[in-house]
Amino acid sequence: MAAPIEFLFEFASPYSYIAAHRIDAMAAQHGRQVNWRPFLLGVVARELGTIPLTAQKKKGNYSAMDFARSARQHGLTFALQPGFPHSSVQAARAFYWLESRDPDLAKRFARRVFDAYHAEGRDMSAAESVADLAAEAGADRHAVLAGIAEPAIKDRLKRETDRAAERDVFGAPFFFVDGEPFWGNDRIEQIDEWLRRGGW
Amino acid sequence: MAAPIEFLFEFASPYSYIAAHRIDAMAAQHGRQVNWRPFLLGVVARELGTIPLTAQKKKGNYSAMDFARSARQHGLTFALQPGFPHSSVQAARAFYWLESRDPDLAKRFARRVFDAYHAEGRDMSAAESVADLAAEAGADRHAVLAGIAEPAIKDRLKRETDRAAERDVFGAPFFFVDGEPFWGNDRIEQIDEWLRRGGW
Repeated sequence: MAAPIEFLFEFASPYSYIAAHRIDAMAAQHGRQVNWRPFLLGVVARELGTIPLTAQKKKGNYSAMDFARSARQHGLTFALQPGFPHSSVQAARAFYWLESRDPDLAKRFARRVFDAYHAEGRDMSAAESVADLAAEAGADRHAVLAGIAEPAIKDRLKRETDRAAERDVFGAPFFFVDGEPFWGNDRIEQIDEWLRRGGW
Repeated sequence: MAAPIEFLFEFASPYSYIAAHRIDAMAAQHGRQVNWRPFLLGVVARELGTIPLTAQKKKGNYSAMDFARSARQHGLTFALQPGFPHSSVQAARAFYWLESRDPDLAKRFARRVFDAYHAEGRDMSAAESVADLAAEAGADRHAVLAGIAEPAIKDRLKRETDRAAERDVFGAPFFFVDGEPFWGNDRIEQIDEWLRRGGW
């Protein structure tokens, strides 16, 4: 059985949102599973001294347009929130807490967070908001609230973020396919071809 | 007749090199011509305060790897030159001088410059080197040397670069399809779909 594709993402990243709606279907065509791994892009970016895409001159305006255009290309609704990007710490902690109990539920929760934040204008920064979204995905709201406050879960997210930095991840989404790194939603077509051809 | 696709590029840009080998074939499938427009990305980048991709922490190493991997994907040889990126001023001037006389020859020359610089390790920064490449593409070496020294040609390149900046171009390659902006070699698939669907 071929190794799963590693999907490293940031909940606040619009291109991660789009990729989250595409990666499992593409992987399935090659008989691959996908390991979802949220991390904190803001922490990585601070270490590198990079600033959010939307804050960059000219590229920022282009990106805001391209977020929406690329979302529409794949049939997805997108609206850039005022104050973007918001903290995804609580959402990412909740993901790992849920995953340790029910991996399928964790993915459903992740999709709920992505859609809520990027398409519906919902908050994901507050623990209470994240608990609401977890409940909508079918989780126990109170258990999630307790779970994301556990030191072990906080430590888990920290380790995942450190690990991403150690692997030279500098943006999101970021994929590893049998160790080969690919950066960006717009690399999904390339990964598809990579898997079809067995590399090149 | 549908309007030509505008292909704005920088001769020193690896992704422009790859795109130069792909854009005309893709455009032809939609009955479109391509207007090739070299500009000086370095001038635009200085105004924006951006630094070359290869000089960026972590992203630099990834990009150097991705240049080569994306080139191989399309059957192209690539080798990053020591001292990258080199000045493309003379090559871009020669392009506009040739284009004013023989547009097909100008495209052949542009492809020769791209291959010589990105695949063969040849110089393109000196006027003499550019004249050699123009001769290899079938142009009159001495006429090209005289042409690129003309004030009108120098002014032409300056205007093209200013115009790119005015249109909020911040990277290369950059495409305009009926006025719609697309940035990057990895957007050629998206443009292909855009033309097939008539936008979305």
